[in-house]
Amino acid sequence: MNLPQGYAYSAVYAGIRQTERDDLALIVSGLPANAAAVFTRNRVQAAPVRLCRCHLAQSKGRVGAILINAGNANCATRNGDAVALGTAREIARMLKLPVAQALTASTGVIGVELDGEKIAAALPRLVNGLSPDRFEDAARAIMTTDLAMKTAFAEARLKRGTVRVAGMTKGSGMIQPNMATTLGFVMTDAQLPAATLRGILKRAVETSYNRLSVDGDTSTNDTLLLLANGASGVRPEAGELELARVEEKITAVLQQLARSIARDGEGAKKLITIDVSGAPSDDAAARLARAIANSPLVKTAIAGADPNWGRILSAAGNAGVVFDPAKTDIRMQGVVVCRGGLAAPFSEAELKQKLDAPEVDIRFSLRSKSKGEARFWTCDLTHGYIDINASYRT
Amino acid sequence: MNLPQGYAYSAVYAGIRQTERDDLALIVSGLPANAAAVFTRNRVQAAPVRLCRCHLAQSKGRVGAILINAGNANCATRNGDAVALGTAREIARMLKLPVAQALTASTGVIGVELDGEKIAAALPRLVNGLSPDRFEDAARAIMTTDLAMKTAFAEARLKRGTVRVAGMTKGSGMIQPNMATTLGFVMTDAQLPAATLRGILKRAVETSYNRLSVDGDTSTNDTLLLLANGASGVRPEAGELELARVEEKITAVLQQLARSIARDGEGAKKLITIDVSGAPSDDAAARLARAIANSPLVKTAIAGADPNWGRILSAAGNAGVVFDPAKTDIRMQGVVVCRGGLAAPFSEAELKQKLDAPEVDIRFSLRSKSKGEARFWTCDLTHGYIDINASYRT
Repeated sequence: MNLPQGYAYSAVYAGIRQTERDDLALIVSGLPANAAAVFTRNRVQAAPVRLCRCHLAQSKGRVGAILINAGNANCATRNGDAVALGTAREIARMLKLPVAQALTASTGVIGVELDGEKIAAALPRLVNGLSPDRFEDAARAIMTTDLAMKTAFAEARLKRGTVRVAGMTKGSGMIQPNMATTLGFVMTDAQLPAATLRGILKRAVETSYNRLSVDGDTSTNDTLLLLANGASGVRPEAGELELARVEEKITAVLQQLARSIARDGEGAKKLITIDVSGAPSDDAAARLARAIANSPLVKTAIAGADPNWGRILSAAGNAGVVFDPAKTDIRMQGVVVCRGGLAAPFSEAELKQKLDAPEVDIRFSLRSKSKGEARFWTCDLTHGYIDINASYRT
Repeated sequence: MNLPQGYAYSAVYAGIRQTERDDLALIVSGLPANAAAVFTRNRVQAAPVRLCRCHLAQSKGRVGAILINAGNANCATRNGDAVALGTAREIARMLKLPVAQALTASTGVIGVELDGEKIAAALPRLVNGLSPDRFEDAARAIMTTDLAMKTAFAEARLKRGTVRVAGMTKGSGMIQPNMATTLGFVMTDAQLPAATLRGILKRAVETSYNRLSVDGDTSTNDTLLLLANGASGVRPEAGELELARVEEKITAVLQQLARSIARDGEGAKKLITIDVSGAPSDDAAARLARAIANSPLVKTAIAGADPNWGRILSAAGNAGVVFDPAKTDIRMQGVVVCRGGLAAPFSEAELKQKLDAPEVDIRFSLRSKSKGEARFWTCDLTHGYIDINASYRT
């Protein structure tokens, strides 16, 4: 898959994380890109989130560079704003950009001062290493407890040429997007006006990052940036549905990224996909799906390959959505386990075996004339989650 | 501690659970008692919850007997209502009570038919075994994954005599009360009119069962019943603050019961008490405390004795309560770990040792003129929770 044109990437080890693994990444767009962004809704917000909001407002949504560090969230820190602004200024100076076109993003532990000097010292190497081919190096540098690099690609062949989309993301714990989650960076070389881009991101995030939960915690640093630098020279034409095709590709990339976060949830052995249908609205369907996805009892049952549909029904009952349990059907791995709110006959042994798979589907259907539906991703809850999180910091 | 007068208890093994351990309990009040009750707000409600609501309405809140089974929730069952009503009728007939004065409660697995014949067959033995001394036998029979029996007692010496309060409860997983949780039965021999009793329960549940979470799941069967049979012959006098003292004792019993559920949360090694102060209102304080209590990242950090206060701050940030992180102080085991939203200096090694205790206190204080406060109980999240729940049913 070819990458979008006009972007360059780099990564180095700046000494922020304790183990020697790249922890500083840079994404640069040769032409300043139009950008759309969504951020965490946590009341506690990290310094780089504040900086992004401020710079995007000043630059009218134009972005030239994104500097990302892992290993430290730069949240609840004394020098947080100064470090974020200082490093943004420095990278802007080196790349000859207006300061407001430089953004920063951070991920890692909360409440520990981020050492701006380590970053400043690493910037020359970082800038020297910039290359259009180092997309994956950057994607690897932003990982924290992630076991797998998370990238997604798409392209749309339009009349006047091909436009490409590439995204990278990270995240494994403290994952329950509300607007966005964790860090995600999606680049396209399509020519897309800022307002169009914002509309696309707003819609796409609803069916991707906002339908994802690992542990129900929303981080203080969630940042999702969508850049369009127009380097392909191709402007999708709205009238010919080309714009819709580009949106579809961007949405697909976001969904793949969200799904890859759930699959790599801390300690996860299984990706769980929850489909809800027949709800009063898409929003109600999403709430039902989220309640099921966030139930530790559902997640541990799946870990144990236990077709315990009563827990699914009970979790849905806590979603704050009005529905009739007697008109509820539940399928697991395609097997009907609950029909009309009651046990359906199925082979416990066979289904247990089917649930012993890396991907588990739960389908929660309400028999009604309503068409509200939602797809949601989560993962099982295992010993691994506890091993990782009982000793993350000390 | 003496038990309230005028109640008798019994327990037998009826064959509902697979292991031979009492699974059927009976609480009888010689004089029909005034009763107040709160139930789960889950959209999916078990048959015995429906029966209780219906009988309490018919009997104007008078209760003579409560029949409780463990091992089966009688929820999402074809014959659920028939079994609940049939067994209530049978016990009423044997005890010569109006049917509406007999209640049932169930706890255990969801979606499996409850065998009413097993219960009917066990009722003669159950009734024959009734004794004022078998309070603890009943308390043990209602346990499911509980490791410890949960009871609490209090008495108030009033001018005209002593009134006593005794409570029993169960619960270990699927615990996040919303109104009530799990099963709880509290008896007093005070003379208390039904309306007074309802007021007491409503207030007491707010600062006890509604401030408790093990895993954020609210069960389909939550039932909390408070009975007052007047057998002491003592009617607390409102004017002389005697009523307030009795309410205080009942509240203390409910708080002890709620605390004992958190302590015995599935897999729990540590009881966590969260105190929030300086919030805009008591309700806001409770929401902040609940968000902290429900964060798996906070719960695993405590399991690992990790003073990771950043997770506490981040969890609070998701509570939907407006507060200023820069005016937030956090203490763990009395040690200030976060002052004004920033790291406070403390000995990591010493605090880690202090956190290696069976009881952990988290104090989350907002510096403000507001007086909203709440105390909340939860437990740590360990491998044990996953072991129990990955294989509960099959």
